[in-house]
Amino acid sequence: MNFKQMVGIEAAKYVQDDMIVGLGTGSTAYYMVEEVGRRVKEEGLKITGVTTSKATETQALELGIPLRSVDAVPYVDLTIDGADEIDENFQGIKGGGAALLFEKIVATYSKEVIWIVDQSKMVPTLGAFPLPVEVIPYGSQQIKHILTERGYQPTFRTTNDGEFLRTDSNNLILDLHLGTIAKPEQLATELTNMVGVVEHGLFLNMVNRVIVGGDSGVVTLENPKFL
Amino acid sequence: MNFKQMVGIEAAKYVQDDMIVGLGTGSTAYYMVEEVGRRVKEEGLKITGVTTSKATETQALELGIPLRSVDAVPYVDLTIDGADEIDENFQGIKGGGAALLFEKIVATYSKEVIWIVDQSKMVPTLGAFPLPVEVIPYGSQQIKHILTERGYQPTFRTTNDGEFLRTDSNNLILDLHLGTIAKPEQLATELTNMVGVVEHGLFLNMVNRVIVGGDSGVVTLENPKFL
Repeated sequence: MNFKQMVGIEAAKYVQDDMIVGLGTGSTAYYMVEEVGRRVKEEGLKITGVTTSKATETQALELGIPLRSVDAVPYVDLTIDGADEIDENFQGIKGGGAALLFEKIVATYSKEVIWIVDQSKMVPTLGAFPLPVEVIPYGSQQIKHILTERGYQPTFRTTNDGEFLRTDSNNLILDLHLGTIAKPEQLATELTNMVGVVEHGLFLNMVNRVIVGGDSGVVTLENPKFL
Repeated sequence: MNFKQMVGIEAAKYVQDDMIVGLGTGSTAYYMVEEVGRRVKEEGLKITGVTTSKATETQALELGIPLRSVDAVPYVDLTIDGADEIDENFQGIKGGGAALLFEKIVATYSKEVIWIVDQSKMVPTLGAFPLPVEVIPYGSQQIKHILTERGYQPTFRTTNDGEFLRTDSNNLILDLHLGTIAKPEQLATELTNMVGVVEHGLFLNMVNRVIVGGDSGVVTLENPKFL
């Protein structure tokens, strides 16, 4: 069993009957969704899933997990999702799977959030992983120009065919190659205030618990801010 | 000649050869675009237009105004657009025509911005006109719920057929019925920081000159901030 599978299965244990569960996107969340689907089928677990991408929606429907839109539920009890980097203050970068917008929307309306990662995602400081920024196509070259002048080294994310990647909302992704993000909150504010930026991949003060899979097994870390 | 036509024609006088001109959207900007098109055709005026909506793009193409995307120009020399309300500090509300996102994008990259309005749009304090907020459809009911709890009386904008209106970016519009906006900057920050909000209709510190049409003719007001 690989690390991603280990944490996916571990996180699925937090799902209980009658919960409204936010189902994340990506290669680690995939295993969690599989395990939740198995529990629904084999154990009769009764939940309502809220998905964070078209890809996860397809997977969940195939597994027979009942789904509702985030707009059709009063709130989400628990969201389980992957992350691309997590620093020592439980701040994260997400969006490697291009689903950052819906992931952040669902996390925003969740009472509790769990991130599941393999040990390679735990870092002292954010920034080695390129920071995704979702932008409106109209004006996106202007935004790229500004971000380049600020030294953020933005590149448009492309598909394997070399086309600009389109998100589920038909927007574009600029990946910022920052190396180190010294002040995540300041950068988040800067990006949020740019006209044409829809959302960015800094997920700050959003996670209650992180489940890490590594050589020494599964470790669960509680964010002291929310204890 | 009605007030809107008067200011549209007056504003078109600011357009000069070789300019890159942002062409606004709405019933007042319509007359300006018509006049610019007339000058292109009859006077041989040589400009490049940058449009702020599909509607204006269609109009400009029919008039034979050469167009480029905001992403294909280094900057915009001058943008001329309407406004729904302008207060005594030259702060505005725009978005009655649902084009606020592209309008704000083009204005952001413009060296100079002129708003053209009839006298009914000049107000002491913003807020009688409903403030448009463009939101991602996914999560929009949650946003509406939050804004309702804050007393902002949001309503989804609908078409004549009773369907949710979709913007040029396929998003929804929530109109906030505020009555009075005591602190526009604070409200702008609050809305910008909401996950799922793409843009809002507060255009703050963005206009250089306002041309007002009314009973006493055309009056041009210069924003002292930019003199």
